[in-house]
Amino acid sequence: MRNFKMTIAYDGTRYFGWEHQPGNDMTIQGKLEAVLSQMTGAPVTVIGAGRTDAGVHARAMTANVLLDTDLSELQIQQYLNRYLPDDISVNEVRQCADRFHARFKAIGKTYRYTLWYAESGEKPVFERKYTWVLREKPDVDRMREAAEHLVGEHDFKSFCGNSHMKKSTVRVVDNIQIVESGNTIRLYFHGSGFLQNMVRILTGTLLEAGYGRLTPEDMDRILEARDRKQAGPTAPPQGLCLMKVDY
Amino acid sequence: MRNFKMTIAYDGTRYFGWEHQPGNDMTIQGKLEAVLSQMTGAPVTVIGAGRTDAGVHARAMTANVLLDTDLSELQIQQYLNRYLPDDISVNEVRQCADRFHARFKAIGKTYRYTLWYAESGEKPVFERKYTWVLREKPDVDRMREAAEHLVGEHDFKSFCGNSHMKKSTVRVVDNIQIVESGNTIRLYFHGSGFLQNMVRILTGTLLEAGYGRLTPEDMDRILEARDRKQAGPTAPPQGLCLMKVDY
Repeated sequence: MRNFKMTIAYDGTRYFGWEHQPGNDMTIQGKLEAVLSQMTGAPVTVIGAGRTDAGVHARAMTANVLLDTDLSELQIQQYLNRYLPDDISVNEVRQCADRFHARFKAIGKTYRYTLWYAESGEKPVFERKYTWVLREKPDVDRMREAAEHLVGEHDFKSFCGNSHMKKSTVRVVDNIQIVESGNTIRLYFHGSGFLQNMVRILTGTLLEAGYGRLTPEDMDRILEARDRKQAGPTAPPQGLCLMKVDY
Repeated sequence: MRNFKMTIAYDGTRYFGWEHQPGNDMTIQGKLEAVLSQMTGAPVTVIGAGRTDAGVHARAMTANVLLDTDLSELQIQQYLNRYLPDDISVNEVRQCADRFHARFKAIGKTYRYTLWYAESGEKPVFERKYTWVLREKPDVDRMREAAEHLVGEHDFKSFCGNSHMKKSTVRVVDNIQIVESGNTIRLYFHGSGFLQNMVRILTGTLLEAGYGRLTPEDMDRILEARDRKQAGPTAPPQGLCLMKVDY
């Protein structure tokens, strides 16, 4: 068996997220496994760097897979791209060390959340499936101020969408950058790892600060509360994109 | 009545083209007229700079419309964007001189056709609805050489999709630029005006040259023939986008 590292881009609109689900063939992992099983004639397990929620996109999800095949990296990539639907693309296939594990070896991830606001009601026609269109203009400087309170090592339990989470909810978010350009506001989150829905809840909470309904200092209170109800709403999935996984 | 100039972006995927058709509510012109009629309480005719085919996109179609309204430019724009579907956006509304006519006053248009090729089968996941994915790599320099033969004032009858065209098929194409970037090849066409399907037939014919099935010199022969059958195939609509109209 040879171990292969893959980099995958996908438009998550039609999918129930990354993770395969029994009896549901509309997951990214499931689609990859089905094509690789067909290629090798044996069951295959694809290990992703993490899970993305239903409707969330990726420009560079990383995964690894053990395959019993004589095909070259390029041949595997061509096979995958030929049989995968056109909203999933395998942008790299590289044979890697046997010990490489896409989830355990990941040391950092970058997510991007894309917002849009225009007073004129102008819409991002070609980016509409990758953007959250706002009805009200947030104060971006205030969002940046609030974001500073969230950077660092914290217990992010208030920002976790899984209320049954038993493992540690402590994570390190070492950078939140907010970039405004024309009608677009992009939030970049970099950290060691993220809890379920965490980036979307962070975005929803930062927007509450941007709308003046929370103060930047409220972020400290919300972190301390360790209570999902204290944070803001979960931003919708289509604005979120996994940009990069670090090893 | 006040005359308004509008700039409109649309994703043409779901539409039967720009021009309204009786009994078919899925045209761009039809959607605009319906919302403006609702706004003013009277029938409205929107005059576009030209027609785009079914499935073709626009980043900046220009149109004008006579409206009996006291609303401001911004109010009209906001009303349109609120009631138009999210794949049509009105990016500008400006009151203009009564004599302004979006079609008669247009002196030039820029169209862009987007091609994609990757040996690895990599796909343009987020741009797939605005791109023609090729299975074979064309020789771009050869396409550029062929394009030089098409630039100028010519009878483009061989490149006209309407076989019943009775008016003149002479047009001026003053520039064809072909830009390669990564896996993307973009063709920019600028001219005084274009016949039905003309940019798509030009693209399909330039690709035949890129594949070596036609020579750059064949372009002269095809122009002279004034026969649609001599030119290459019509490239599919989704790669085409109207970028700009000059006045």
